[in-house]
Amino acid sequence: MTDIPTPLSAEARERLRHVSVATLCTQLFKRGFRNVYLQHVKRLTKPTAGNLVGPAFTMRNIPAREDIDQISAFDDPNHPQRKGIESVPPGHVLVIDCRGETRVASGGQILTTRLKVRGAAGLVSDGPVRDSGPISQMDFPVYCAGGSAPLNLIHHHAIDLDVPIGCGGVPVYPGDVMVGDDEGVVVIPHHLAEEVSRDAVEQEKMEAFILQRIEGGAKLAGTYPPNADTRAAYEAWRNEQDAAGR
Amino acid sequence: MTDIPTPLSAEARERLRHVSVATLCTQLFKRGFRNVYLQHVKRLTKPTAGNLVGPAFTMRNIPAREDIDQISAFDDPNHPQRKGIESVPPGHVLVIDCRGETRVASGGQILTTRLKVRGAAGLVSDGPVRDSGPISQMDFPVYCAGGSAPLNLIHHHAIDLDVPIGCGGVPVYPGDVMVGDDEGVVVIPHHLAEEVSRDAVEQEKMEAFILQRIEGGAKLAGTYPPNADTRAAYEAWRNEQDAAGR
Amino acid sequence: MTDIPTPLSAEARERLRHVSVATLCTQLFKRGFRNVYLQHVKRLTKPTAGNLVGPAFTMRNIPAREDIDQISAFDDPNHPQRKGIESVPPGHVLVIDCRGETRVASGGQILTTRLKVRGAAGLVSDGPVRDSGPISQMDFPVYCAGGSAPLNLIHHHAIDLDVPIGCGGVPVYPGDVMVGDDEGVVVIPHHLAEEVSRDAVEQEKMEAFILQRIEGGAKLAGTYPPNADTRAAYEAWRNEQDAAGR
Amino acid sequence: MTDIPTPLSAEARERLRHVSVATLCTQLFKRGFRNVYLQHVKRLTKPTAGNLVGPAFTMRNIPAREDIDQISAFDDPNHPQRKGIESVPPGHVLVIDCRGETRVASGGQILTTRLKVRGAAGLVSDGPVRDSGPISQMDFPVYCAGGSAPLNLIHHHAIDLDVPIGCGGVPVYPGDVMVGDDEGVVVIPHHLAEEVSRDAVEQEKMEAFILQRIEGGAKLAGTYPPNADTRAAYEAWRNEQDAAGR
Amino acid sequence: MTDIPTPLSAEARERLRHVSVATLCTQLFKRGFRNVYLQHVKRLTKPTAGNLVGPAFTMRNIPAREDIDQISAFDDPNHPQRKGIESVPPGHVLVIDCRGETRVASGGQILTTRLKVRGAAGLVSDGPVRDSGPISQMDFPVYCAGGSAPLNLIHHHAIDLDVPIGCGGVPVYPGDVMVGDDEGVVVIPHHLAEEVSRDAVEQEKMEAFILQRIEGGAKLAGTYPPNADTRAAYEAWRNEQDAAGR
Amino acid sequence: MTDIPTPLSAEARERLRHVSVATLCTQLFKRGFRNVYLQHVKRLTKPTAGNLVGPAFTMRNIPAREDIDQISAFDDPNHPQRKGIESVPPGHVLVIDCRGETRVASGGQILTTRLKVRGAAGLVSDGPVRDSGPISQMDFPVYCAGGSAPLNLIHHHAIDLDVPIGCGGVPVYPGDVMVGDDEGVVVIPHHLAEEVSRDAVEQEKMEAFILQRIEGGAKLAGTYPPNADTRAAYEAWRNEQDAAGR
Repeated sequence: MTDIPTPLSAEARERLRHVSVATLCTQLFKRGFRNVYLQHVKRLTKPTAGNLVGPAFTMRNIPAREDIDQISAFDDPNHPQRKGIESVPPGHVLVIDCRGETRVASGGQILTTRLKVRGAAGLVSDGPVRDSGPISQMDFPVYCAGGSAPLNLIHHHAIDLDVPIGCGGVPVYPGDVMVGDDEGVVVIPHHLAEEVSRDAVEQEKMEAFILQRIEGGAKLAGTYPPNADTRAAYEAWRNEQDAAGR
Repeated sequence: MTDIPTPLSAEARERLRHVSVATLCTQLFKRGFRNVYLQHVKRLTKPTAGNLVGPAFTMRNIPAREDIDQISAFDDPNHPQRKGIESVPPGHVLVIDCRGETRVASGGQILTTRLKVRGAAGLVSDGPVRDSGPISQMDFPVYCAGGSAPLNLIHHHAIDLDVPIGCGGVPVYPGDVMVGDDEGVVVIPHHLAEEVSRDAVEQEKMEAFILQRIEGGAKLAGTYPPNADTRAAYEAWRNEQDAAGR
Repeated sequence: MTDIPTPLSAEARERLRHVSVATLCTQLFKRGFRNVYLQHVKRLTKPTAGNLVGPAFTMRNIPAREDIDQISAFDDPNHPQRKGIESVPPGHVLVIDCRGETRVASGGQILTTRLKVRGAAGLVSDGPVRDSGPISQMDFPVYCAGGSAPLNLIHHHAIDLDVPIGCGGVPVYPGDVMVGDDEGVVVIPHHLAEEVSRDAVEQEKMEAFILQRIEGGAKLAGTYPPNADTRAAYEAWRNEQDAAGR
Repeated sequence: MTDIPTPLSAEARERLRHVSVATLCTQLFKRGFRNVYLQHVKRLTKPTAGNLVGPAFTMRNIPAREDIDQISAFDDPNHPQRKGIESVPPGHVLVIDCRGETRVASGGQILTTRLKVRGAAGLVSDGPVRDSGPISQMDFPVYCAGGSAPLNLIHHHAIDLDVPIGCGGVPVYPGDVMVGDDEGVVVIPHHLAEEVSRDAVEQEKMEAFILQRIEGGAKLAGTYPPNADTRAAYEAWRNEQDAAGR
Repeated sequence: MTDIPTPLSAEARERLRHVSVATLCTQLFKRGFRNVYLQHVKRLTKPTAGNLVGPAFTMRNIPAREDIDQISAFDDPNHPQRKGIESVPPGHVLVIDCRGETRVASGGQILTTRLKVRGAAGLVSDGPVRDSGPISQMDFPVYCAGGSAPLNLIHHHAIDLDVPIGCGGVPVYPGDVMVGDDEGVVVIPHHLAEEVSRDAVEQEKMEAFILQRIEGGAKLAGTYPPNADTRAAYEAWRNEQDAAGR
Repeated sequence: MTDIPTPLSAEARERLRHVSVATLCTQLFKRGFRNVYLQHVKRLTKPTAGNLVGPAFTMRNIPAREDIDQISAFDDPNHPQRKGIESVPPGHVLVIDCRGETRVASGGQILTTRLKVRGAAGLVSDGPVRDSGPISQMDFPVYCAGGSAPLNLIHHHAIDLDVPIGCGGVPVYPGDVMVGDDEGVVVIPHHLAEEVSRDAVEQEKMEAFILQRIEGGAKLAGTYPPNADTRAAYEAWRNEQDAAGR
């Protein structure tokens, strides 16, 4: 649907796996983006592979209607929720627009397991999940509004796949790059993913140096943000680091 | 997009112009629908032609993105917000999904005027409008979340036309019949519009009789809801009314 | 149920009909009461007889349950909502605990009409009413959370009559004196109604004098609150007023 | 007060101790119940005996009044909060209606300890508890809105015991069966506890099989929900399981 | 406190009296300002002199403390709330930061009257006022969060005058120009007031022309926003208008 | 700014390190204070030294303005946020007023580290922090509204240091004593810190005894609150304890 000219490079994906969402928010703020962090969406699992990283594949829900959204709706193999899960391309993140509705679940353990088996990069929803206990033990990135036992049909009707949506108050276009760490999830517009990932790595190197200085007793003034002296010291330190192969 | 097999008949439209939204909610509750009334959507204008009535033509907004949603976006004549207004079929109601966002406007006086000139049946949004002062004086049905001066681009990006949406927490499918009185707006699933409109008229005749009785001192028990005696009295009264041509 | 030793005297009732709810809040604050004004409860009607005044007769709602709260529930003449309306003693105010739920109505025109015919002093609810258009034209004090068309059964089950409740976040014990003006509703613990009504009248006389002074150009300091000089001037003015029979 | 004809059988209690609240929500949804899961009520403790299970014994709070709800109120041994804790029948769950008020506690460590010593099955409140640190270490099921240090008297006045209440937005009638797992709490109307517990066990057996298949690479279509083939495979698998005594 | 280099010219003040707040929001959006409209602040009065216009003089409240914020606090003639009202320079607008607290009033009729007598240009608060009935009849611009009877001391302690504050979620620096029409209030950073007022007048002339065209049947495309043809037609029309002295 | 006559004694500081915030809330309630516990402010770290204890040093934020609050703002070494961190006296707690805004951070790891290095007693904010993962591992008391990655400049402008503020809905005057345990944070007006700390220790000794009795099977009546017999038993027990040197 949306045209995605620049697939995410393996290098960018790797870089994004190791920088913080806070750093990415700063990089995007510098480029004029103020609304890129999903509100009220928290990490549920502790995946071993580092940050959630992947292009968005989206699912849109509207409010349920009592005559349509009965348990029998799932008998249709083309039900958009089920079809959506079967359609997420490997390496992509399923991003679900639940309109911030926290009273019922977006999905549960079986669907999340199928997502994982299919090779999806993760699940992001601004609603809760059910079976949140078992899901929290999965080695798979899941970000959501916590756990809630009632099933999605009570308030949701899945209606569209791979269209631009809102999630956690943020616009998500198919192909935008989702990155999640232990603090939450940021959406990087896809055309910026390469440059933002590079600048984020640079920023974090600098901040590691600054943090070291602050831990050593340096004052904020001149150190954070760094003045010319601190920048020079950083360059020297970094050259050393590079020389030492770190 | 959505297939609408049953256009709204002129008779149903006329009936719906004169029954209350409360009555329609009761009729829909009897059929198992609990969530049909738009929450936080209030009448802004006092149109002379009675209730808002018409099939829904929808517009979907997602959250704005700072790089896309600049003032220059409107230079594109195919901008969905502008195109949407030019696409509403005569007699239809433009229903806008603003995700309940109340901080900025859905639109303003010029767009509303264009809607009216084009013969639309009304405007419904779960966001506010700007120019709410002049709009409130128009003889055109407008229902929204009040007035708010900031422009839509700050938080909205119009993305889709004539797709199923949520508005005021209620599912709205293209072609569903929107009815609004001074209390608010109800969504009638389009396949039910004929029967619901007929039963609503019947219910209101009965309730007019009951109200008369209550005003005359009748107790609730036996009168509301009516027992056999009251029903018989109602039938007699109604026959008289019919005979007298009222 | 609750024992009400001091019925409201005709004199107190008359006094309370003419003082403002703001003044009563000040009098109660002076006695240590900070939470006596119903939040989110607004006047819907413009009764000709001045303030709403009367002892509370209460109705308690709990959340509805789908199997119990069907339309047929009202066939039972002892349904608490209906029984409650038939039980409000003349001159009393029906106060309904809707848990601040604004999505559905507390009741509608027929029930409100019955209340009025039975001689109730008014209706107070922290939920909305349906038929809010016709009700707003009644000469009967109604305070509520505005208008909403869906019927009460969707979210409410009336369960108890004449028990202590919360309404608008305030405790209301049966017999407590409800007073409402155009700004809202205050609950006066019944044992304080006499003294509070007297002191409120006194306060308002003083404030009328102060307002006159302020309109005449007096500074706040020494005038509001009044110092000894202003108090003396007030006493003189009031004696004049009394002598002149005003 | 409310008549409870069907006490919870030991078998049902045992079954409910091992099924998930999500499964119970599905079973109740199939029977037309959409609002049975307590919103904003989370597990505080990690009891060793599995799920919270037991019939509800209720306590109702109204907003506090400054003159009544002083610290001295607790000197009365018949204060409803204290009396309530002494009245919960063994094996029952104390369910407290705090109107969703999160600013102050429902109770603290001493009261919770007394509950446990008396043999109660657990504590459920839609308000927070104080002493949440020590309570979180107790081997006793406690579900609430987290921890909050201010005492209940600031906003609550306990007024009634063993009456129908709302808790977490859900109706709770005395004797209804409360079940809680790590995701939250569901209320089962007491007349449905037996059949729902049986069907829930069946559902979970089926879903265990389905999950196994999904983990093994099966597609959703035909597996979840199961088609005839999957159902046949399940029956075979289950017969094997039964034969093997699992 | 804050340095205000550019006092508001009489011409700018006059221009701002006649343009809409919506137009001013558009002008500020074009300059990069997205958050300039006070949320949840509504007009209470209908002043005869057009828009509220004037530089801000601010008052800051913090939450009240029970031992300090007793009724006797007002005996101190230097109480900041009272001193603030006596300090607002003529032609300035008193802007009160109530932290969006809607449960109690910011002030009442006597203080508002004193403000008016002293020549203030208006009152803006993100809390309600008490005596909202009488105040609503004053010929004086008052914008607030509606009416509420409880007195300010219950939740507010006035602590500072003429410092930068937040009001309705918007930063207000002393000297910023407040403009209010029937839709609400916008804050113009003081250094932009001249140019924004000029550009707003121009925008409104253009939009009056566009509205005329739309009422006459013009399509949105090419008209709104205007293309070269429409702009040329506008210039011609405006020259005519100017020639005719309109 | 505010005059702090009574510095916190080492004895009081030590006592406050070991009593619970719940106990302190009870002591303050007995003295008429109902609003002393910070709402929505939770502990992020697990410091080894017991409770957070220290006098407040405050920072006030107002909403950000797009032209002022750019990333370059931090180049100014006198930027109040940075200056504030460099100004907190050793042993004091930095308390930040974020107006309860949860969408962006109050600060991050580098600033928190600087605070710790400078010898501050802790950090309290009613907004979130960024870098919440690394900060949660610090041995330093941090209380806030969780983690959020966007930087403070998006919604905050630091404007004042060491002035009275609101935080978590509670008034905080410079020098007030902040105490935090695993449940949250209480503000003790500085003139009460000595006596409250003493009485809290006494209360907790008594409650430890009561808890022991309750665990041993004592009824609430007569035990909690203690009657004369229980008080006598407590005195005896305590004398024993004292004699044994416990």
